[in-house]
Amino acid sequence: MELTLPPGRSDAQFQAALRAFEGVVGAEWVFDTDLDRTTYSDIYAVGPETAHPPSAAVAPASVEEVQAIVRLANQHRIPLWPISRGKNLGYGTAAPRLAGSVVLDLGRMRRILEVNPDLGYCVVEPGVSYFDLYEHIQANQIPLMLSVPGNAWGSVLGNALERGIGYTPMGNHTRQLCGMEVVMPDGDLVRTGMGAMDGNHAWHCFPYAFGPGLDQLFCQSNLGIVTKAGLWLMPEAETQLALSMQASEEDDIAWIVDTIAPLKRAGVISQNQFVSSWLGRLVLMGQRSDFYDGPGAIPEPRVRELLRQHDLGFWYVNIRLYGDDRITRAQADVIKEAFARHTRSTFVEEPWRKGDPFLAVDPSFGAPSAVPLAMGAWTGGRGAHLGFSPVVPPTSAHVMRQFRRSRQRIAEHDLDFYASFTIGDRHANNMNMLMFDRDDPAQIAKVRRAFDALIADAREAGYGEYRTHLDWMDPVARTFDYNDHAQMRLFERIKDALDPNGIVAPGKQGVWPAAYREHRA
Amino acid sequence: MELTLPPGRSDAQFQAALRAFEGVVGAEWVFDTDLDRTTYSDIYAVGPETAHPPSAAVAPASVEEVQAIVRLANQHRIPLWPISRGKNLGYGTAAPRLAGSVVLDLGRMRRILEVNPDLGYCVVEPGVSYFDLYEHIQANQIPLMLSVPGNAWGSVLGNALERGIGYTPMGNHTRQLCGMEVVMPDGDLVRTGMGAMDGNHAWHCFPYAFGPGLDQLFCQSNLGIVTKAGLWLMPEAETQLALSMQASEEDDIAWIVDTIAPLKRAGVISQNQFVSSWLGRLVLMGQRSDFYDGPGAIPEPRVRELLRQHDLGFWYVNIRLYGDDRITRAQADVIKEAFARHTRSTFVEEPWRKGDPFLAVDPSFGAPSAVPLAMGAWTGGRGAHLGFSPVVPPTSAHVMRQFRRSRQRIAEHDLDFYASFTIGDRHANNMNMLMFDRDDPAQIAKVRRAFDALIADAREAGYGEYRTHLDWMDPVARTFDYNDHAQMRLFERIKDALDPNGIVAPGKQGVWPAAYREHRA
Repeated sequence: MELTLPPGRSDAQFQAALRAFEGVVGAEWVFDTDLDRTTYSDIYAVGPETAHPPSAAVAPASVEEVQAIVRLANQHRIPLWPISRGKNLGYGTAAPRLAGSVVLDLGRMRRILEVNPDLGYCVVEPGVSYFDLYEHIQANQIPLMLSVPGNAWGSVLGNALERGIGYTPMGNHTRQLCGMEVVMPDGDLVRTGMGAMDGNHAWHCFPYAFGPGLDQLFCQSNLGIVTKAGLWLMPEAETQLALSMQASEEDDIAWIVDTIAPLKRAGVISQNQFVSSWLGRLVLMGQRSDFYDGPGAIPEPRVRELLRQHDLGFWYVNIRLYGDDRITRAQADVIKEAFARHTRSTFVEEPWRKGDPFLAVDPSFGAPSAVPLAMGAWTGGRGAHLGFSPVVPPTSAHVMRQFRRSRQRIAEHDLDFYASFTIGDRHANNMNMLMFDRDDPAQIAKVRRAFDALIADAREAGYGEYRTHLDWMDPVARTFDYNDHAQMRLFERIKDALDPNGIVAPGKQGVWPAAYREHRA
Repeated sequence: MELTLPPGRSDAQFQAALRAFEGVVGAEWVFDTDLDRTTYSDIYAVGPETAHPPSAAVAPASVEEVQAIVRLANQHRIPLWPISRGKNLGYGTAAPRLAGSVVLDLGRMRRILEVNPDLGYCVVEPGVSYFDLYEHIQANQIPLMLSVPGNAWGSVLGNALERGIGYTPMGNHTRQLCGMEVVMPDGDLVRTGMGAMDGNHAWHCFPYAFGPGLDQLFCQSNLGIVTKAGLWLMPEAETQLALSMQASEEDDIAWIVDTIAPLKRAGVISQNQFVSSWLGRLVLMGQRSDFYDGPGAIPEPRVRELLRQHDLGFWYVNIRLYGDDRITRAQADVIKEAFARHTRSTFVEEPWRKGDPFLAVDPSFGAPSAVPLAMGAWTGGRGAHLGFSPVVPPTSAHVMRQFRRSRQRIAEHDLDFYASFTIGDRHANNMNMLMFDRDDPAQIAKVRRAFDALIADAREAGYGEYRTHLDWMDPVARTFDYNDHAQMRLFERIKDALDPNGIVAPGKQGVWPAAYREHRA
């Protein structure tokens, strides 16, 4: 990819900055060839990856090097785009929001600083992947369990900071963050919460401490660069019990949500409860062309035929219970009673006991895997996906409003429908996966039009996205419009106070520093 | 109490400000007589209440009135000290940190805006007390349960914002906050999280939304004035099961913590688990003079005698399980097994079923009460208390270090010892109550010396307080010293950006705006 300079910088100024960065990290950790720029571009770009071109990348190995780079970026007026491992698939991967930013690649900072079995937390640097952490825990026989997302070679810390989710009782990953170390945009180093006291023993035990709480201020944020953080992990359960069931009709999601959500609030179901539509299972069985050959969405009659052939319902529910089996059996009884009020189908029950085989296919099992990414191959070609992810209250009324509207809109755009609801205590993440072939411009154009429409629809109906791709950060941010975008005014007032040169991740989540505000879409 | 003017204001300027406030709220809601000032002073002051004198109070009835007062306070350079109901007993009650501040009394804003039985949350204004909310829930037969602190006539919202605690599964009150409306120091009005989208249905369902998370930024904070917020409530359980036990020796707290904390992390015990020392029970049986007549701490031999006479152990454990009784019975079995590894004592089991009598004495029951405040009468005279509240990791090693040191220090100062540990998932709040007669200067002097020593000891050992009285906000803030107080530098940088005139709660939690920074102790 050809060089796009940082805004307002001449080639000489840019080169001077890179040489200064090399003085910190060594020439081998500054990447500025055409191939390097391609490497740090969005491999799931919804269109040409040149829409968000990095100018270069720099990879520090320590907190001190991050501080030094940040100070130099201020001097040289170079915007930085921090990434952990750059695997934010569907949201921009490693690419920066602002063209010409230098990617600050934290992937070399890969230390697992602590895994505390007595208190149930780990402390990791941004470069630690789920696989890294899992291997460390297995190798040291630590009785703790991970909560993993679909893509386990991504960063543990990056996922939590971006509010990614998993499917265990700790599946709301951002809620498990506790105690951070953050390089501020001026190079200062802050530790949050109890860690603001040097040597405090409860840094990763209690996120609130004394005075305002800062951890969430640094999530989906360009107010600082998180260089380490604590994340809570759950104790490994000696036994687990999975209860799975299919529901044949699309409207079944109404009673499924009304049954699961109260059980979650009562603590009977503790996991972040994933309920997926049929396509989530079909993508694991083959590619689209194995099931249907036409260019547009698989037609309804063919869908019905496929479901019959492959013995699939419209929805798949897989509840996993963790812990002492006296308790999980009692919980299972309560769950079965609740479901029996709505269906004659019964659960398939699968007990698991420590020592039993590893369940790679099930993300609620707690082991890292990349199986769900099989959907990348669905369309053929250079397959990619884009996730439309509004948050809705977990009641049938809200879920059906959201589901029917999105389903209709996606059908109108002649795209395959793949939805899931991940039910938390008081919210559900409705993920609508739009899969496309990056080499098919017509398909990409459809996906983009559908995505624009889905955002506008959701805003109109009163639902917001919790996360989005680089291309839609400004449009989604604009949907947060209360009192003429008062929250954004506040974000940008804080941003300008902490980052007067606007060098940390300008434009992230629609938050623009004064220096680059004219780049807002 | 005589008038203390706001810093740098003449009497004429101050009177002009009050007249301007009267233009907003009416003359009857501006309070500036000597009696008014006494009313808004610290009724639990650790010494003369004149240490933190308010100049006046103003009581707006609506968000718009709060905004108008804030704008006038900027024009007139009058520092405001917002209170909800002013019942922050032991931490300063209604009194301001900075002498001469005008108390902004939000007690008239007392609307319960929503109680959502389907989703399990309420939305309240600052003036709503636990009694108000409980009565509303009872009158409307809403199947939700409260989590209450010891003092239930305090504010639901104020308690959560100040990180107060209760003893149910929702007992970490600040963690239940979800979605706020905040008047900024310049009078702007922000809604946080999903509420930043006008009309969003998930405002009080999901606290993270799109971009940085702000709710905790406004807790123990002077960065804005929270005028309403959502708070999660748990579903009412049809049945409860209480398991109570006494442990005779002071060192028993070691195995108690090591037994309870893993059960909490595994989800077997869901409540915020209160474990109290004997004095917590004795204060409910009478006053100090009923048990001992000397001036200093009750001597050890007399303590032992009292415990025998009243059939008390050193520690009292009361575990309450909530929900379907098949599950709670299984949980009870697991808990009993775990305790049986350490003690031959057995639990007293008390099942409760909806319709059974109300349990006022037990704060884990979920009904508001002021029974624990009986300790106010312990010393006789104008009784008061001060809480020293470090947070420790819930392991025997940390708990014993903290417990032995505080116990010794409190004994050295010849004060009665009353400690509790409230065990959360990964932390414990160690509350040490120092009770005193406000009319006994010698006792007050001892309490103050003990408190100074306790803070210094805890800092030395690596533990921090999560909350403190006005008098110690600066000293406790100073213990958060990592990187030359980097977190405080950040707090004050944000403070100055959002509140250039420094009018909202200057000095709160040690955070001083530029305008008043010379008042730091």
